[in-house]
Amino acid sequence: MSNDIAVPNLADDPPISSGSGASTPAAPTLPAAPAPSRLRPVSLGRLAIPFAVGIALWFVPAPSGVDAAAWHLFAIFVATIVGVIAKPLPMGAVTLMGLAATIVTGVLAPEVAFSGFSNTTIWLIVVAFFISRGVIKTGLGNRLGLFFVAKLGKSTLGVAYGLAATDLVLAPAIPSNTARAGGIIQPIIRSISMSYGSAPGQTARRVGAFLTSTAFYVNAVTSAMFLTAMAGNSLAAQLAGDQGVKITWGGWALAAIVPGIVSLIVVPLVVYRVYPPELKKTPEAASMATSALTDLGPMSKAEKVMASTIVLLLALWIFGDMLFGMSATTTAIVGLVVLLVSGVLTWEDVTMEKQAWDTLVWFAVLVMMATQLNELGLIPWLSHQMSGVVSGMGWVNAFILLTLVYFFSHYLFASNTAHISAMYAAFLATAIMAGAPPMMAALVLGFISNLFASLTHYSCGPAPVLFGAGYVPVGPWWRTGFLVAIVNIVIWMGIGGVWLKVLGMW
Amino acid sequence: MSNDIAVPNLADDPPISSGSGASTPAAPTLPAAPAPSRLRPVSLGRLAIPFAVGIALWFVPAPSGVDAAAWHLFAIFVATIVGVIAKPLPMGAVTLMGLAATIVTGVLAPEVAFSGFSNTTIWLIVVAFFISRGVIKTGLGNRLGLFFVAKLGKSTLGVAYGLAATDLVLAPAIPSNTARAGGIIQPIIRSISMSYGSAPGQTARRVGAFLTSTAFYVNAVTSAMFLTAMAGNSLAAQLAGDQGVKITWGGWALAAIVPGIVSLIVVPLVVYRVYPPELKKTPEAASMATSALTDLGPMSKAEKVMASTIVLLLALWIFGDMLFGMSATTTAIVGLVVLLVSGVLTWEDVTMEKQAWDTLVWFAVLVMMATQLNELGLIPWLSHQMSGVVSGMGWVNAFILLTLVYFFSHYLFASNTAHISAMYAAFLATAIMAGAPPMMAALVLGFISNLFASLTHYSCGPAPVLFGAGYVPVGPWWRTGFLVAIVNIVIWMGIGGVWLKVLGMW
Repeated sequence: MSNDIAVPNLADDPPISSGSGASTPAAPTLPAAPAPSRLRPVSLGRLAIPFAVGIALWFVPAPSGVDAAAWHLFAIFVATIVGVIAKPLPMGAVTLMGLAATIVTGVLAPEVAFSGFSNTTIWLIVVAFFISRGVIKTGLGNRLGLFFVAKLGKSTLGVAYGLAATDLVLAPAIPSNTARAGGIIQPIIRSISMSYGSAPGQTARRVGAFLTSTAFYVNAVTSAMFLTAMAGNSLAAQLAGDQGVKITWGGWALAAIVPGIVSLIVVPLVVYRVYPPELKKTPEAASMATSALTDLGPMSKAEKVMASTIVLLLALWIFGDMLFGMSATTTAIVGLVVLLVSGVLTWEDVTMEKQAWDTLVWFAVLVMMATQLNELGLIPWLSHQMSGVVSGMGWVNAFILLTLVYFFSHYLFASNTAHISAMYAAFLATAIMAGAPPMMAALVLGFISNLFASLTHYSCGPAPVLFGAGYVPVGPWWRTGFLVAIVNIVIWMGIGGVWLKVLGMW
Repeated sequence: MSNDIAVPNLADDPPISSGSGASTPAAPTLPAAPAPSRLRPVSLGRLAIPFAVGIALWFVPAPSGVDAAAWHLFAIFVATIVGVIAKPLPMGAVTLMGLAATIVTGVLAPEVAFSGFSNTTIWLIVVAFFISRGVIKTGLGNRLGLFFVAKLGKSTLGVAYGLAATDLVLAPAIPSNTARAGGIIQPIIRSISMSYGSAPGQTARRVGAFLTSTAFYVNAVTSAMFLTAMAGNSLAAQLAGDQGVKITWGGWALAAIVPGIVSLIVVPLVVYRVYPPELKKTPEAASMATSALTDLGPMSKAEKVMASTIVLLLALWIFGDMLFGMSATTTAIVGLVVLLVSGVLTWEDVTMEKQAWDTLVWFAVLVMMATQLNELGLIPWLSHQMSGVVSGMGWVNAFILLTLVYFFSHYLFASNTAHISAMYAAFLATAIMAGAPPMMAALVLGFISNLFASLTHYSCGPAPVLFGAGYVPVGPWWRTGFLVAIVNIVIWMGIGGVWLKVLGMW
């Protein structure tokens, strides 16, 4: 076993003078405890909420048409989702408790409860997290941002587009939307804003407020464009797969490319009109970026390997399935092996990528529960109940109603993934039952699962980071966000709908 | 998504004076790349070895009785094991490459290749790693060491027994033998040795050499005593399960308790005789430990919760299966939930426990390959070939020969797990084919999979840590280690054999 927990490095110890008497020489003492940690127990009040919900549902008699096992799993599932929202503990810990509940209550066998961990869709995202570490570690992400700002950044609007281009290029290979917005885009915004004397408060509107809010809305759009641009997207794809709708990496990207590009062009313009920067010309931003690029010098070998790997990944994600029958997960694993063998990433980088492991846990549990709920007949039953409401209005109207409810219910969620876990499967099944073309319905609901993030300052991971920067108050954040939501609905349902029709998806 | 990769903490930024002109105020620059990492590519020579082996085997025509898929998987498996030994990259990365090879070559479907990740035996060990973090974090492990040294440490031999007791008590809940030996036992040895002026070099033999070597041999014994005392044990149990031999946590512990206790008593005495400390009386060790315990004060709440959780775990591991049909994995998950809810562990502790994630990866890949090799008929075929050699000598002689070969071939391995992966399944199948009682054979080979670690200074994780302390030169390490190996073989095969007979296992 090659373990190394807390192993003291003895080679670094100072040499000890030998030959002294048998009695204590200096004053070595036995090791005191490593700073005995204080207990930080969870809030019992918050913990009580999911438990109360779960127990109450458990003892409600199962509706007719639903057998006891399905109903009990549903109770645990709802309690888990409520726990993810109430958050007595982080999402990973809450879902792990949900997993424990399924086994301890005997609702699922341990083999079934752990089955989600071998799901290949989950491993696509986990491996993509490892790969994204390379983009950040090598500095390639930062260089891309500087490059686009140097090219486009002579005006404030140009900077916004430069950052949008950066986010777009990085989106396929960085499934953490927060890492893109918070780790790469936001530091550039801050530097440019500061250089123009735009700080949170009185001077916020000069440059910073516009760039920050635009970056936030753009991030929701880039997240919607690729299966690997946001961790929850593959959850949606998996849930669709459970209902027989097979979404590939290339299929998602193709369907999203037209409305995505239109959105990336239109959304900054809309923000520019309703929430404009006071300063329109920013020649220094471009020149600063140019000189920062000069300081960086030519691309390092690590950056070149990283960039080539991304190109390889994109090529294989787009064409690998068609040409070699190579799945998106296989492609990602090959990319990771390239990064490990070339030394861009070390194995320690991989094992320390805690966000990937966090995602593995919550993702595996949620997918397992959703799959089992579907197999036990609960989702079909639920959709049957819901479809009663939309019956008789024709599938187009029914689908529009469903998507609008799905979209604006995000006011109630603080995480894309929680929202997808809670509602995606049932809404998709209802839409299909109402007559909507399955692939189109699955994709549109998948896109919306990102676009709805524009609504609030707590909607998803990037929201608190960008909102927390302090440039944009809550009022304009919500007002602009609502307007952007409407614009995105029009673009993605209108132009996007026509595009999907062209592709023959309905 | 709640992501937080490299998100700068804006709250800590110094306030920016507002109201300055539109031109650059101070000298903010655009962010330079985060220290562009240099490439550390792997040694191509070392990487070539497993590749050469794998490719050569791949193109050897499959022997009659073995179909092509099984043979190709065997080639990848052998290359992976060779890679684990040649170590161009850490074990996790090498096994991941093996996984990639199975998919890219089309030998296995991706779903099959990832199937190991939902194996519940693996999750038992992964979760045990999380739990063991609590033992170290709360300081409970250190307190236990001080307690036993205070009680037994008036003589050098007593200190050795005190540390053995510590290792024994911690073994069920700390599956990292290295964490026990290197993280908890070794710091105490160092303090005691230094307090008696025993440093590496001239004064090593005074106290330090004896305590270090005893701790190493004891660690091999405690590792052999519980399914959860060494990560590889559950790999052995899983491989046995693939051949229809179901080893439970309680079954393993019961079978090991008698030879284990005898070994823990005898081995320190043997070392005391052949490699004695110059100093026999150590009254100050006991009094130092007593005063360190006084300094620590009463047990903290976190330590109490941790200790109660371990008691709960042991009770459920021993009786849970019998009383409630509760598997060892379920028990471990329940224990983890207790630690999370009580706040002994945070979710961040879990996601940052990189060793657990490392273990998850290599374990899942090795188990998957071994399972598939068995299902495809390769292991049965291999054992059939091997059983030709031992046929006609009766099962007792055959089994003794097999165990001796299995034991002393560890001179060739630097990891228990690599050795188990490479040889356990085939040796067990051969033993069973020769007529050995399956459960006995599986358990004895499992015990040996720990005991063989006494042989060298590179045998397993704790070896380099304790050898690296510098108290014991290679010569005595190997000589004493060989003697201890013989003693352990006599105890575990002799007394252990009688005990297994009493238990009705043969």
